[in-house]
Amino acid sequence: MTTKPLTEPELDEIYAFAVQLGKDAGKLLLDAAQARIGGKGSSTQAFSEKDSAVDIVTKTDEDVETFIRTRITRQYPDHAFVGEESYSKGSSRAYLINDATPTWCVDPLGGTVNYTHLFPMFCVSIAGGKPAIGVICVPFLNQLFTACRGRGAWLNETRRLPLARNPIPSMPPNAPSNCIFSCEWGKDRKDTPEGNLYRKLDSFLNMAAELWGRGGKGAMVHGVRSLGSATMDLAYTAMGAFDIWWEGGCWEWDVAAGIAILEEAGGLITTAKPPDDPLSARIKDARLGSRLYLAIRPAGPSDTETGREGQERTVREVWQRVRELNYTRPAA
Amino acid sequence: MTTKPLTEPELDEIYAFAVQLGKDAGKLLLDAAQARIGGKGSSTQAFSEKDSAVDIVTKTDEDVETFIRTRITRQYPDHAFVGEESYSKGSSRAYLINDATPTWCVDPLGGTVNYTHLFPMFCVSIAGGKPAIGVICVPFLNQLFTACRGRGAWLNETRRLPLARNPIPSMPPNAPSNCIFSCEWGKDRKDTPEGNLYRKLDSFLNMAAELWGRGGKGAMVHGVRSLGSATMDLAYTAMGAFDIWWEGGCWEWDVAAGIAILEEAGGLITTAKPPDDPLSARIKDARLGSRLYLAIRPAGPSDTETGREGQERTVREVWQRVRELNYTRPAA
Repeated sequence: MTTKPLTEPELDEIYAFAVQLGKDAGKLLLDAAQARIGGKGSSTQAFSEKDSAVDIVTKTDEDVETFIRTRITRQYPDHAFVGEESYSKGSSRAYLINDATPTWCVDPLGGTVNYTHLFPMFCVSIAGGKPAIGVICVPFLNQLFTACRGRGAWLNETRRLPLARNPIPSMPPNAPSNCIFSCEWGKDRKDTPEGNLYRKLDSFLNMAAELWGRGGKGAMVHGVRSLGSATMDLAYTAMGAFDIWWEGGCWEWDVAAGIAILEEAGGLITTAKPPDDPLSARIKDARLGSRLYLAIRPAGPSDTETGREGQERTVREVWQRVRELNYTRPAA
Repeated sequence: MTTKPLTEPELDEIYAFAVQLGKDAGKLLLDAAQARIGGKGSSTQAFSEKDSAVDIVTKTDEDVETFIRTRITRQYPDHAFVGEESYSKGSSRAYLINDATPTWCVDPLGGTVNYTHLFPMFCVSIAGGKPAIGVICVPFLNQLFTACRGRGAWLNETRRLPLARNPIPSMPPNAPSNCIFSCEWGKDRKDTPEGNLYRKLDSFLNMAAELWGRGGKGAMVHGVRSLGSATMDLAYTAMGAFDIWWEGGCWEWDVAAGIAILEEAGGLITTAKPPDDPLSARIKDARLGSRLYLAIRPAGPSDTETGREGQERTVREVWQRVRELNYTRPAA
């Protein structure tokens, strides 16, 4: 099945649908969390005390995905749907998004561990198109990140991203120094020197250590941040709050909405995997499904370079300091 | 000068004063941030484009501290005041809080680097007493953490802390496994094997690595989080969102309000420095001014132990996995 490109009014309509869906799904997440919260304003207890927090979260995850899929299927029966929960239960690990069918890519609950602990960095993430539309709703913080191709990226529908735009800051001349570097420890914690844990740690250390330390690789970033959610990391990079996000192991639903928002805000996203020639390799757009991502925040021009030049310079500096991570797709 | 203990009505009055002061100071932080934000709802540009973000932040830091100190001095002329900005400019590095004089301990802007980047994890932090009162206002997230001795700890004055209390979760039986571990990379990034950077990394790795990895020290925590603000880390530990916070290098204004809130919520705070006998050493309350802290979230009882027993068990497990950090007070 091949479909015609969407008209702009059609895109407007789908965008409005996605934004409302994100808000409604975010409210479901919040309502389920409320059941474990006491004090004034708490709802009635919806779960038996015997249910563990993990059971509750799994059920919420499934319920919210079903809610989103049902709404989408009813409104757009011709569209395809890729969701974290249904994918996990399916037998294939293939990359299921193609150019021929308009596809929704949904994570009903990003930051699952945060949600279990009621740490506010959890969200619902909805992407549509290739992705042309991105919606991330962070209900506990009342933050809604939205973007649609050609329509800008927004926080809470009123503040354009990146947030600092008086003016939009250029990349620091000595980046990654003076940058906030966002990264996650991940779930692969094998205690083996060639495992992802040690490859990540080596990379983090190069980024954090004093300038010229670590055999010249020390970058002395201004700060290292780990929020426990790739989706939130990307949203804050689009916002301009993080300068650099580097990660391996993400699935497409973790990043599809965030990529749409980041790119519409003017950010750059490419591969986390350092090429053989980091100083000269062409900087290609990230391939959704590749599981390896490096994002740079939106950047304004400086006296000596364009915003894009500053971003590309930063990509090359990061590539020289990070190691290749070992995340492949399981056999399709 | 020795003062009489405060009566309960006096404490109520001071608490109400501190809460309002925290809200007002938080609004000042937000207003100053708005000047760099564009889009609908932005205020007029208050700074010349030539001012760097860092200059703006330093000015904001000083202005907000002056605002807080002036209000306190006018209301309570007999009270002492210790603030981050005034301390930094003073010549002494001595610990200035004593039991004889009611003392306010204030950080006008916690999470300075976050503020510079408009990452929402910044706050104003106000503690009073020893500290009996703690107020942390996070204006960008509309989060206000407050506590007063005997009056409970609260989020936004309506939700009692810890947040999850249906029931309050016990510590996991295999803690630190299944815990969220909060820690920061800090500013000391010297590339020397015995420096704080490597001591921290060793400790982080022990906490993160697979169970029984790292020579038996691997704890496979559920997640590692770094927010870039000790004050925010403590607030989220009091909330129950983080299970464990371990840090060195904090000053008293970074933690005074957070400690008051954490303790009133039922959390435990002791020293980050592992004793010679981690399995049997007495677990003493943290000493404000010690610069080394280990906090455990509020915990409910399990079938086999009290909440306090679960917290103490967790402290001992952490002590066995972390290294001593080298943060002393500069010569007083």
